[in-house]
Amino acid sequence: MHGPQPLKGREVQLAGRPNGELRAGDFRIVEVPVREPGPGEVLVRNTWTSVDPGLRLRLAERAPAGYFAPFGLHASMDGIMTVGEVVESRADGFAAGDAVWHASGWRDYAVVAAGVPALGGLGTLTRLDTDRAPAQRYLGPLGGMGLTAYAGLFDVAELRAGDVVWVSAAAGAVGSLAAQFAKLRGHRVIGSAGSDEKVAYLLDELGLDAAFNHRAGPVSELLREAAPDGIDVYFDCVGGDHLEAALGALRRFGRVALCGAVSQYGRASSGPANLFQATANELTLRGFRGSGHIDRMREMQRTVAGWLRDGRLRYRETIVDGLERAPEAMARMLAGDTIGKTLVRIA
Amino acid sequence: MHGPQPLKGREVQLAGRPNGELRAGDFRIVEVPVREPGPGEVLVRNTWTSVDPGLRLRLAERAPAGYFAPFGLHASMDGIMTVGEVVESRADGFAAGDAVWHASGWRDYAVVAAGVPALGGLGTLTRLDTDRAPAQRYLGPLGGMGLTAYAGLFDVAELRAGDVVWVSAAAGAVGSLAAQFAKLRGHRVIGSAGSDEKVAYLLDELGLDAAFNHRAGPVSELLREAAPDGIDVYFDCVGGDHLEAALGALRRFGRVALCGAVSQYGRASSGPANLFQATANELTLRGFRGSGHIDRMREMQRTVAGWLRDGRLRYRETIVDGLERAPEAMARMLAGDTIGKTLVRIA
Repeated sequence: MHGPQPLKGREVQLAGRPNGELRAGDFRIVEVPVREPGPGEVLVRNTWTSVDPGLRLRLAERAPAGYFAPFGLHASMDGIMTVGEVVESRADGFAAGDAVWHASGWRDYAVVAAGVPALGGLGTLTRLDTDRAPAQRYLGPLGGMGLTAYAGLFDVAELRAGDVVWVSAAAGAVGSLAAQFAKLRGHRVIGSAGSDEKVAYLLDELGLDAAFNHRAGPVSELLREAAPDGIDVYFDCVGGDHLEAALGALRRFGRVALCGAVSQYGRASSGPANLFQATANELTLRGFRGSGHIDRMREMQRTVAGWLRDGRLRYRETIVDGLERAPEAMARMLAGDTIGKTLVRIA
Repeated sequence: MHGPQPLKGREVQLAGRPNGELRAGDFRIVEVPVREPGPGEVLVRNTWTSVDPGLRLRLAERAPAGYFAPFGLHASMDGIMTVGEVVESRADGFAAGDAVWHASGWRDYAVVAAGVPALGGLGTLTRLDTDRAPAQRYLGPLGGMGLTAYAGLFDVAELRAGDVVWVSAAAGAVGSLAAQFAKLRGHRVIGSAGSDEKVAYLLDELGLDAAFNHRAGPVSELLREAAPDGIDVYFDCVGGDHLEAALGALRRFGRVALCGAVSQYGRASSGPANLFQATANELTLRGFRGSGHIDRMREMQRTVAGWLRDGRLRYRETIVDGLERAPEAMARMLAGDTIGKTLVRIA
């Protein structure tokens, strides 16, 4: 029971559909009543909520077929990863004080049904081991981001001994993990990002073998300088000219893990003009989503928690304070103005 | 020894680099001296020579990286599949009268070194079993075409029980085989081609489940009518709008075998605008070439020869008579004016 006063919460709602860049008026923050949890449900006070490039696709009236559904206008934005603390539980296996993740982010309170799959299984209500790492790490390396990087590299791209790897958006939430995972397995890794500051981060903090600022020239030329003998694996977070550059640089039997295409979100997209390279060089391009690899989650968490503990994995967050600033955080991330995982700290 | 008179032969040479459609002046036929075979070589009188869409890529000054090299101007066009009869042998394992395939087509006589890999291994001098089938079948279902269809479907696209399959250019040399192989394995198969006559061939002769003329409307709409519940495998010989339609129709974990992109040859090509569907639906696009699957050749020949013998596999050829008409045959094939394998009968 909340107590004598009905609980009120705040949530971010989509107020309009952005065309291109996000505008302040595309979102609004609304005070909403928070109902009491029913049987099998918990009430969670959210503490950190996630900001992901893929959310951009769901701001449009139609999302790509097969992808997560678009957000409705003037309604709760359901299906965004978040962590929080259970305030009240009517679900077996959950108790007040538990740290959890679930998929009802961008609000400060959420009533969540236990055992109901969300976000393809990635966002199903789950208790978190905060002895291992602080709760917000589960929105990054110990959650969907870690899984996407891990499965993308090892399962989707089938990383093999000796492969030279290029990771784009390598200063981003997933890219920075994928690049380091490949380094930790002994590969030569090239990273790219959108500013000189990020390039310095890739070289100095993450220890990549080469890195370039993709705004410094045609990506294909920059890649050729960084990898004159070509590459074997491309971990693609960007699409567009990056994917085209990769197709031109991939050696025979090379592989692309198609993780995302942030350069193409919110605009009319165009495919790579040199896709025939896939035939010429017998390349494999494989699209994937972290949610398709949930069977790897525990193994990934164990491995990555070990790397974090040892200090072998470097990890950065861009933290924006205040639920009401979630749209701003998203706009900054999409503009390339964040490093590492972008998080909103709610309280 | 040829005898007292030095032997003369004819060959087709590239005289200019076509821009778009082929023109008569892009080729010339030249009389050339035919030298005697040296040690380890055979002299072959070619009888049938192959006309393949991929040759179009090699008429340009630069072929896609990793692909077979472009043809030089005013020089022998090396690396085209052909069959013929050994006239004189100085190589172990070959005798006058043997039927062979090799990669020195578009000429009437060729001196070929035994055991020297050609066309990625596909065109290495090889004796043919003409008891099993006439020699020219080895330029079609019992050779590279058969191997491309077989490996593309079973290895590259990893055809699985229940898959719904779309094959484009399904009246073509490779497509007609891939479509029938999938039918013979019990799949629902949709074929597309560029004329109503070909569509009738697909339905009436090849027995496909559905077929459409891609010139009758937007390919994505025609495909949706033919496969309202979507597809699982797309065998791509065409690229362009066909690949884009496939990406829109492929169900989760669908696969594309990227065999060729004839719609894009000889022009500025453009990639599929909806490639993000690969991520959304966890699709795999895999480029391949028959030459990458030579280990499957004998098994394929055994299987396909059996299907041909039983009459379960239908097979058509478009035969053009006369070496000098090879360029014309190629132009007709690229214009979509041929059915099945296009062959030039030399003598």
